[in-house]
Amino acid sequence: MNILDNIRVVLVNPMHGGNIGAVCRAINNNGITDLAVVDERPETDWNEARKLACNAREQFEAIKKFDTLREAVADCTVVAGTSARTGFYRDTSYPVRDFAPIALESAKEHKIALVFGREDKGLFNEELALCSHIIQIPTDELYRSLNLSHAVYICCYEIYTALGIFQPSEESAEEANSDLRERMFDLWREMMTETQFVHDQKLDHMMMGLRRIFNRGKLTVPDCKILMGLAKQSMWVADQWRKEQNKDKKMH
Amino acid sequence: MNILDNIRVVLVNPMHGGNIGAVCRAINNNGITDLAVVDERPETDWNEARKLACNAREQFEAIKKFDTLREAVADCTVVAGTSARTGFYRDTSYPVRDFAPIALESAKEHKIALVFGREDKGLFNEELALCSHIIQIPTDELYRSLNLSHAVYICCYEIYTALGIFQPSEESAEEANSDLRERMFDLWREMMTETQFVHDQKLDHMMMGLRRIFNRGKLTVPDCKILMGLAKQSMWVADQWRKEQNKDKKMH
Repeated sequence: MNILDNIRVVLVNPMHGGNIGAVCRAINNNGITDLAVVDERPETDWNEARKLACNAREQFEAIKKFDTLREAVADCTVVAGTSARTGFYRDTSYPVRDFAPIALESAKEHKIALVFGREDKGLFNEELALCSHIIQIPTDELYRSLNLSHAVYICCYEIYTALGIFQPSEESAEEANSDLRERMFDLWREMMTETQFVHDQKLDHMMMGLRRIFNRGKLTVPDCKILMGLAKQSMWVADQWRKEQNKDKKMH
Repeated sequence: MNILDNIRVVLVNPMHGGNIGAVCRAINNNGITDLAVVDERPETDWNEARKLACNAREQFEAIKKFDTLREAVADCTVVAGTSARTGFYRDTSYPVRDFAPIALESAKEHKIALVFGREDKGLFNEELALCSHIIQIPTDELYRSLNLSHAVYICCYEIYTALGIFQPSEESAEEANSDLRERMFDLWREMMTETQFVHDQKLDHMMMGLRRIFNRGKLTVPDCKILMGLAKQSMWVADQWRKEQNKDKKMH
């Protein structure tokens, strides 16, 4: 049993097919599959919805339709409505990041619902009254009105993230140890002399600068090998140049 | 100086006007105003963009256009690209929530850029090479491809949220103290007897149940006043009923 399968996204009386399609993608990106539309509008463009759903075809085909919000959430324990307005049901109102663990706790054993209102008018008071929790999405105070699919995305993303199953891709190369790093720095020191980049008295100062640059992030084994190769090649070129000079001297 | 004014959102070669408009809303919701489009397409529907931007008119009108990404980010210190692919520049790659404080730290003093690729092909390798950081957006592993405006929304939301300036609306009513709560419970106890809801021997048990229900969340002063009013009214009705009964008895 996947905990995310217990999360139902409910769109109440949405206007635009494009938004319904974008919502299919939004829930799909966050591992959620259960989508319901309440009080469907006859003018909704379902072809546009299908187009915007892109690869979230499974979510699109599985949309459940209900006449009323009461029916759409009947089997849910937590019923969380989203509202840009404040002052109504304030004491059950949570910023979405604080709500996420509450949602997951209930979704372990029960169906729960995330409820989103109309694009223009949001949820009506009698719909908010059906909600056990109200979710606030932090926004700039001057511009609180979110696009419908953006609001759905943030709520699903916070819940998905709180689940903690995402594995960020990490550097797979082995981190270099001090011995490898120092052998690399030795070669660079040698290279700076051989290429006549610095005079002896400036060498230690320049080495400190290079150590600062290269130690700012973690150096890996392949990083050190690239840097060592580069130093060796510069020294080889310097050596070739010296040989050419000697050849010239002998010829004259 | 607003720190969010130092954040530039850069769209590289976007296809759909609708997405550009939705991005205007996304940045507006999160207090960001600086939007750039690189390598504009002749077929982009700018009327659709204007329509989807809704009230984010200011952001829409201020869009800057550049021929190349290099020019669009020239004045930025941190240049963060988004990529669904992994394995390229992995060691400078951060989940977006971990990236947010890095972005804010630099944006205190310098312009920084958040860079988003084409809807279908993302950023090319030579564009990712211009990026000092790569942002990963946590998603379900089976469906990593985000709608462009969803990706922008998440990145801007994480940065806005990390700024910590959002004030969640909180219950403004005073929390009830024990004295008020106990006077409320006294009235309910009295009411349950007067209305003959429970017999004496069950009264304490029932009161424990009610205490559990009402103490599950914080009770406010107005909450207690509603509950006290309700108990008093029930007792008044019970009293009226008793008086009627007595009247009937006297009449017969």
